[in-house]
Amino acid sequence: MALKKKPVTGMKDILPAEMQIRDYVLNQIKETYRSFGFSSIETPCVEHIENLTSKQGGDNEKLIFKILKRGEKLKLEEAKEEGDLTDSGLRYDLTLPLSRYYANNAASLPSPFKALQVGSVWRADRPQKGRFRQFVQCDIDILGDSTSLAEIELITATTTALGRICPGKKFSVRINDREILRAMAAYAGFPEESTEQVFITLDKMDKIGLDGVEKELEECGYSREAVEKYSGLLAQAGSDAQAVRALGTVLADFLPEGRAENLAGIMDTVSEVATADFQLVFDPTLVRGMGYYTGTIFEVSMEGFGGSVAGGGRYDKMIGRFTGMETPACGFSIGFERIVTILMDSGFTVPASSARTAYLFEKGTDPARLAEIMKEAAAERQAGGQVLVAQMNKNKKFQKEQLQKEGYTEFKEFYRDALKR
Amino acid sequence: MALKKKPVTGMKDILPAEMQIRDYVLNQIKETYRSFGFSSIETPCVEHIENLTSKQGGDNEKLIFKILKRGEKLKLEEAKEEGDLTDSGLRYDLTLPLSRYYANNAASLPSPFKALQVGSVWRADRPQKGRFRQFVQCDIDILGDSTSLAEIELITATTTALGRICPGKKFSVRINDREILRAMAAYAGFPEESTEQVFITLDKMDKIGLDGVEKELEECGYSREAVEKYSGLLAQAGSDAQAVRALGTVLADFLPEGRAENLAGIMDTVSEVATADFQLVFDPTLVRGMGYYTGTIFEVSMEGFGGSVAGGGRYDKMIGRFTGMETPACGFSIGFERIVTILMDSGFTVPASSARTAYLFEKGTDPARLAEIMKEAAAERQAGGQVLVAQMNKNKKFQKEQLQKEGYTEFKEFYRDALKR
Repeated sequence: MALKKKPVTGMKDILPAEMQIRDYVLNQIKETYRSFGFSSIETPCVEHIENLTSKQGGDNEKLIFKILKRGEKLKLEEAKEEGDLTDSGLRYDLTLPLSRYYANNAASLPSPFKALQVGSVWRADRPQKGRFRQFVQCDIDILGDSTSLAEIELITATTTALGRICPGKKFSVRINDREILRAMAAYAGFPEESTEQVFITLDKMDKIGLDGVEKELEECGYSREAVEKYSGLLAQAGSDAQAVRALGTVLADFLPEGRAENLAGIMDTVSEVATADFQLVFDPTLVRGMGYYTGTIFEVSMEGFGGSVAGGGRYDKMIGRFTGMETPACGFSIGFERIVTILMDSGFTVPASSARTAYLFEKGTDPARLAEIMKEAAAERQAGGQVLVAQMNKNKKFQKEQLQKEGYTEFKEFYRDALKR
Repeated sequence: MALKKKPVTGMKDILPAEMQIRDYVLNQIKETYRSFGFSSIETPCVEHIENLTSKQGGDNEKLIFKILKRGEKLKLEEAKEEGDLTDSGLRYDLTLPLSRYYANNAASLPSPFKALQVGSVWRADRPQKGRFRQFVQCDIDILGDSTSLAEIELITATTTALGRICPGKKFSVRINDREILRAMAAYAGFPEESTEQVFITLDKMDKIGLDGVEKELEECGYSREAVEKYSGLLAQAGSDAQAVRALGTVLADFLPEGRAENLAGIMDTVSEVATADFQLVFDPTLVRGMGYYTGTIFEVSMEGFGGSVAGGGRYDKMIGRFTGMETPACGFSIGFERIVTILMDSGFTVPASSARTAYLFEKGTDPARLAEIMKEAAAERQAGGQVLVAQMNKNKKFQKEQLQKEGYTEFKEFYRDALKR
């Protein structure tokens, strides 16, 4: 029987042209992050099923590719439910494995630890255009730093990377704090136990607008008074650091001392320090889906692209789930696939780093002559060139056109009879 | 309940020190291969279970991490055997996915196609020291070229890469041809249907020696005469290209015309063209485990390291399993993890590409002053430096020692009171 030629549902083969862009973008990101003192690390793609299903991953936990137990551990006849069949799964993000990694290796790592992790993650999402079940994330995280230096460095580093990859593209960083979100809900008069539900509705703001949010909250049964007070707060809030301070004064009774100033200070310093050209705005409606965030949250949008291209925030409780001891943690993740899509759609081509030459030799060239040609190629490669040695096709013109598409700009032709051309 | 801190059995967390070496080695390999005109590609880590279990992978097929069907497709109650539960698995090598990739995308690819693929593969091997269940392979393959140019380029490129990564390390490339192996068995008088069994015994040569091979073959019930004729052939064969030609004359009645000359020609040209310093030897006992090889096979051993560090060969039948049409194919795979192990064991350190400076600021530095410090760091980063900004610890001496271990050579200290030191 013939084997299956297509990739498995929802995953993709990456062709050389896209691969060039991917490699280029990855190198730019890694170089930038390294210049900020982040250290590369790697975690296994396979993670304990107990960790993956520990309620850290929100809806992603419904999308796990689970791995079958092996050998004697797989007891098919006794198995009553899915959980009996599996002991591990493919990671759905890089944050959970990073937290496990830090818990496991903290003694061998500097403190604070600035981690750079690039890797594939898997989610069994419904297949749809431009969205794949295996995709790459690029994360930086600072573990063990409770000060706002962590947020400032993460935002500065990520915006520097984005500015380098997509020069000329306008982008904005929206920023908020889970504590401010919580205080706003409390100030409006929503019961404390409903906060998460209010956030879920608020998170739909970009889709349904403020009116839609009001309507949905009322439908949930919250008092008209609370809903109005809430939407008033959202509508009136400004977007700069001063607005954060002003909101902090309004929310004083509901917010821990210094919280608003912390966020405003991050905004001030980032604005002063960051070298990329972007907008930094306070967005009181920014929620970010993941339940694990505990403080500052941020998200990057790019001109002409719906949805975010990067996002992150502070998650001070997750490492404690592994160690029993809380460790401050804050991270920023670049949606690598989205950046690649934006660049491909805009016709981006990778700047050539070296000359590309194709050596074409005539069919039937004798071994001694071929060896000479290959020695010439070796010398050109040692001098930094990129050289393809290939047999000349019958249709040489077409062959050259194809090679030009692959980036070959120089051609050398080698004939058996040196006089022939 | 606390979550699990250790990685899943047999897989590993990679610490920054190892990661630096891994990144360095990968870059060297990729740069070298690109200079030979190989194009990067990527295949999904998850592959159809039908492809993974199609007898292309030999014993590796027993080691597959299988992925559970999802949603309605998983019918636990009706499932009678493992196969009913799974529709895909993690790839155990890069060759099978590459063949599928080429079958799926040939129309968009140049011909011949020179592919470079780097990626993780998974095998549920019994956990043992230095051997992991997730590991990286670096493969180059030339698809669509039936001439020996493919072998010559693969061997030249791989030896160039190994020479760059491990300068001063002695290594040797052993080379053979499955057709010559087959002809030797036929010449000795083994029945044609036993050829594979004879190879399995011959493959143990490095462990049990020629005596052991003879003994095992006799125990298998082969005639004393055949075994003696066979071992005589093995013992007498020389190791250079002339020896291959001589053996070709002896085996003339059993070998397709030109086979021995093909291998000898590869050896001649590689010896002349390759720039790295290595031994190239004909090894009539080289088998290589995988059943899919059809012609030339090769393997690299490195001084002071048991086992091979790279290997490959020609597999002209595999792509036809997908397309129904035979396509010549030849590949060389570097055992990336082994190279990393060799470098780590020899105390290798990655050459620093840029100055690393740590900026240490005193606790309590006010935001305006911190912003100034960070601007100075940004300027140094833009000039190509690597700058870490961190709060000064109480034990500054220890902190600096730790940072020196991470590669920081320069330190700048910033105090709240400029006069204090």
